[in-house]
Amino acid sequence: MSNQPWKILESSYLRPKFRIDKCELANGKVFEPMVFELNTWANILAITKDQQAVLVKQYRHGVQEVLLELPGGVVEEDEEPIEGAKRELLEETGYSSNNIVEVGMIYPNPAFQTNRLFCFLALDAEEVGFQNLDESEDIEVQLVPLDELVAMTKRGEFLHALQVATLFHALAHLNRIN
Amino acid sequence: MSNQPWKILESSYLRPKFRIDKCELANGKVFEPMVFELNTWANILAITKDQQAVLVKQYRHGVQEVLLELPGGVVEEDEEPIEGAKRELLEETGYSSNNIVEVGMIYPNPAFQTNRLFCFLALDAEEVGFQNLDESEDIEVQLVPLDELVAMTKRGEFLHALQVATLFHALAHLNRIN
Repeated sequence: MSNQPWKILESSYLRPKFRIDKCELANGKVFEPMVFELNTWANILAITKDQQAVLVKQYRHGVQEVLLELPGGVVEEDEEPIEGAKRELLEETGYSSNNIVEVGMIYPNPAFQTNRLFCFLALDAEEVGFQNLDESEDIEVQLVPLDELVAMTKRGEFLHALQVATLFHALAHLNRIN
Repeated sequence: MSNQPWKILESSYLRPKFRIDKCELANGKVFEPMVFELNTWANILAITKDQQAVLVKQYRHGVQEVLLELPGGVVEEDEEPIEGAKRELLEETGYSSNNIVEVGMIYPNPAFQTNRLFCFLALDAEEVGFQNLDESEDIEVQLVPLDELVAMTKRGEFLHALQVATLFHALAHLNRIN
């Protein structure tokens, strides 16, 4: 009986991609969880030759604060995650790299989101163009030494949980976690 | 003009705690983001005297998979986050500790969630009771050596992003991240 998937009895959509499932649990109880059907996401820690992380500052409406973050966003349907990460990096910052590796895949919120987040590390990133933003985006590029980004995260000044998780995987790849 | 908070023109609720804000952006465009008003969450990495992490296995309906996770959950309105973490640890695993420290605070998803996640590290955790689960919970306790949990995370076998972020802060506290 343990850890059995819930049996979905009914689904109804409140908004496209946002549904309520009527589920029957292994113990026979009926439960109606919300599920967000979200596309794949990608985040990227891009580092320049002189060990500066390419970060973005933007307003986040959930917490109504301006936060310092990694570039990233939604991967398009016809894109590989690495191409999405590269595109978001270029669009949000004007930077690019020919040395990008996938360092991890994680679930942003497996309780009520369906999607996956791919984490990338770009080395030798260079400024090659200009920002190209969506109309709801208002993003400021900021270079921060990688060591300072790690110190800021430890001090609680880099607050986006999904990006702290991305930083974990990038630092693990760089053998900085033991 | 840069990074100005959006001005909320209207809010409408689809479900209690789940609203759509009609917003005016700094550029004059109108945008209607969804916002989840969620309570504070707490996660806890509890380690026994012999360096075993106290983990839980449970079904997650968003991704429809059984995952290995840290204990944690919603902090009650009248609770301090540390009390919530201690309560969730006891309810989900039967373990407790008198040596709990807050190692970080992060935003689970600042784009569309309002809430904060507090991260705790418990040392010298001991089994003191039995599980006491909600009716939608079906949780199996599993002890994993802390070093193996870190290795599993690096290998992509510990997948909940918010808990990878919690592990970051716990390992930083233990001076295992440089």
